Amino acid sequence: MGLPFILLNYKTYLQGTGQEAVKIAKACQAVSEESGIEIAVAPQLPDIYRVALEVDLPVFSQHLDGIGAGSFTGQIFGGSLKAAGASGTLINHSEKRLTLAEIEASLNAAKKFGFKTVICTNNVPTTAAAAILEPDYVAIEPPELIGTGIPVSKADPEIVRASVKAVSSLKPEVKVLCGAGISKGEDLKAALELGAKGVLLASGIIKAEDPKAALEDLISLV
Amino acid sequence: MGLPFILLNYKTYLQGTGQEAVKIAKACQAVSEESGIEIAVAPQLPDIYRVALEVDLPVFSQHLDGIGAGSFTGQIFGGSLKAAGASGTLINHSEKRLTLAEIEASLNAAKKFGFKTVICTNNVPTTAAAAILEPDYVAIEPPELIGTGIPVSKADPEIVRASVKAVSSLKPEVKVLCGAGISKGEDLKAALELGAKGVLLASGIIKAEDPKAALEDLISLV
Amino acid sequence: MGLPFILLNYKTYLQGTGQEAVKIAKACQAVSEESGIEIAVAPQLPDIYRVALEVDLPVFSQHLDGIGAGSFTGQIFGGSLKAAGASGTLINHSEKRLTLAEIEASLNAAKKFGFKTVICTNNVPTTAAAAILEPDYVAIEPPELIGTGIPVSKADPEIVRASVKAVSSLKPEVKVLCGAGISKGEDLKAALELGAKGVLLASGIIKAEDPKAALEDLISLV
Amino acid sequence: MGLPFILLNYKTYLQGTGQEAVKIAKACQAVSEESGIEIAVAPQLPDIYRVALEVDLPVFSQHLDGIGAGSFTGQIFGGSLKAAGASGTLINHSEKRLTLAEIEASLNAAKKFGFKTVICTNNVPTTAAAAILEPDYVAIEPPELIGTGIPVSKADPEIVRASVKAVSSLKPEVKVLCGAGISKGEDLKAALELGAKGVLLASGIIKAEDPKAALEDLISLV
Repeated sequence: MGLPFILLNYKTYLQGTGQEAVKIAKACQAVSEESGIEIAVAPQLPDIYRVALEVDLPVFSQHLDGIGAGSFTGQIFGGSLKAAGASGTLINHSEKRLTLAEIEASLNAAKKFGFKTVICTNNVPTTAAAAILEPDYVAIEPPELIGTGIPVSKADPEIVRASVKAVSSLKPEVKVLCGAGISKGEDLKAALELGAKGVLLASGIIKAEDPKAALEDLISLV
Repeated sequence: MGLPFILLNYKTYLQGTGQEAVKIAKACQAVSEESGIEIAVAPQLPDIYRVALEVDLPVFSQHLDGIGAGSFTGQIFGGSLKAAGASGTLINHSEKRLTLAEIEASLNAAKKFGFKTVICTNNVPTTAAAAILEPDYVAIEPPELIGTGIPVSKADPEIVRASVKAVSSLKPEVKVLCGAGISKGEDLKAALELGAKGVLLASGIIKAEDPKAALEDLISLV
Repeated sequence: MGLPFILLNYKTYLQGTGQEAVKIAKACQAVSEESGIEIAVAPQLPDIYRVALEVDLPVFSQHLDGIGAGSFTGQIFGGSLKAAGASGTLINHSEKRLTLAEIEASLNAAKKFGFKTVICTNNVPTTAAAAILEPDYVAIEPPELIGTGIPVSKADPEIVRASVKAVSSLKPEVKVLCGAGISKGEDLKAALELGAKGVLLASGIIKAEDPKAALEDLISLV
Repeated sequence: MGLPFILLNYKTYLQGTGQEAVKIAKACQAVSEESGIEIAVAPQLPDIYRVALEVDLPVFSQHLDGIGAGSFTGQIFGGSLKAAGASGTLINHSEKRLTLAEIEASLNAAKKFGFKTVICTNNVPTTAAAAILEPDYVAIEPPELIGTGIPVSKADPEIVRASVKAVSSLKPEVKVLCGAGISKGEDLKAALELGAKGVLLASGIIKAEDPKAALEDLISLV
């Protein structure tokens, strides 16, 4: 199946804020180097610069507005993310939903800066629609499972399988990530068996007592 | 009248992105030290950390969500701003409007971290309503003048005068800033004569060929 | 204390949709005529016309956008509400929050058509801020109590008392309504004793097996 | 090419508000009966009931929220639209944009009530993405042309042609409407020649001195 892609969303967890963001990123880097598995981190916006300075991993933004340089106070401009060291972004996370027109604009803005892009979606039809826009990844996350610790790969395997099928028939170059409730090695293994190319996860690692050990468990069955 | 407070909003201008954000902040610091006038800078979110590391000025965020630590992907958490070195924030800028409930929540979140707060408003009634919430400052910016180079202190002095009057009768400890179109020394002087305690400005300095000279002109009549 | 004002929000309850909206309004009219108490109804937008045709009660909209005639597809224009027979509107209900600038614009649009206005708020500071804008009423509804059946007048009497105090000191002509969880006669009585001039209620009447009996119970202790 | 579908969006134009909405709908009905061309009208929400009572044409809503019966104050519930006589809806008009998840939920809500559905989009990629969700129609409207009187079929024929091509290769049963700037017979003819199956139009008819004559001109070359 090839090695999976692991994207770690820090959300606004205290355990991943400020200098803690760097510590967790260093744990990710160690595990990535030991295993050869690509791990990317998505810390909070004010932490991107310091994380990117101190680790050699892809650093993603949690959000990017589809705007350029100009009069956009408080919005997230790709140019400033790039300058801070980011190389990818989440788009349309369930906690930061965008209009369809904004998703497309955000994707264009991200591509302009050479970013890897992950559009988050909530069910099979929206996953298929997002794939049409040609991001690098779509991440299917049924909202009712986010943050529950119940992995989508177990609770609703059909949604992952159907998403993979829909995407591969429409845009085979777009890869599917599996989100929502992923934290253990068996969750990742199940996701990959369903056709996902990786996972988007958050609390299972960030809030773990030992994030490095949690990451090692996550990849233990790959 | 006392010395004014000057708050410089970088918006997403290319001229103030990344390392340029630091250069402009250093110009602000030099002018502040020469003049004794308090100048604060509000760079883009990913630039807050590097600006705060390199200058000794109050660094503001352009936005703060009224949320805490937790599952708030892509939102702006006060704790991460604080960790990055911020000490204040704009709230409800015309380019990032919030609901009334969100403004109040944002203000509470900001106060929890000891931040100075500036609520932006668009006319006299909304300025009065914002003052009731007891931020440190309200910044009155008629949207039709933002970015025009036409100073509100000249184009619509009555809106500034009426805002100052309304605020001082309701909440005398809340100070009024004058935004929209401010860039020259005479604009600042006019604003202060109308009762404002300072200005919120952006393009006139950030996009100036020589930001330091532009700042020196701005304060030349005080 | 004078007679209270009762405003019945139909939300999108099936029991108050279409011709059912008219039936409930007729029950309100009967109770209003028997008791002399002013009752206003706020059915869904597509039902305003038929309700206004068939009853002689104030008919409120559940929302009004702060826009005029023009290119505002899907938005709610005061002129069309007026033409349909509405004479008042809720603004900023917790299920339809607006920015501060939009609240003010909505209020202006409503006043232009001579509408009675009720701004909904969530706590004491936002109630005070809303009162500054001078609607006819502010309706304080702690979001955590909405739809619970637990009356705010019992669960959190202090929030009602403090809202009344804040509003009467700032804008004595603005009246406070008590929302969230109100359904019984004792809830209304408690609200009025705390200084409210009426109540905003919904499920307790609309979803009652016998709405007329529920209304009669509601006003039984006044 | 078959007869086109004409959908008339009243926006919040004064000329189509209240009883005027009925007058224009009657003109549409007369032209539809004379020509055999299907014309549907999308008046403002409070006017749907009276229009549906008085004409025998499909009546569309300008918006539908993806919610059901329940606690959704101020939102637009399919059940109340159905009860008022609507049989179709616009979704995601440029003046009422929705998130991708909301578009999908709105579409499902509309289908539950047997409504015809038109998703509005702004460019070729978003048109293709919307088509994946399988509405009856997608209406491509470049925002920069809306309300200009410059027909998209002339100003940017390629966007129409490319939309038709993308949609027919992905979901051949979904039909493309051409919006933005359409008002004359030659605009409609050009749209149909580019592969559109109809048009979505507004000011050209609603604000015409003689709407019936304007409609007759619109269909004169078909």
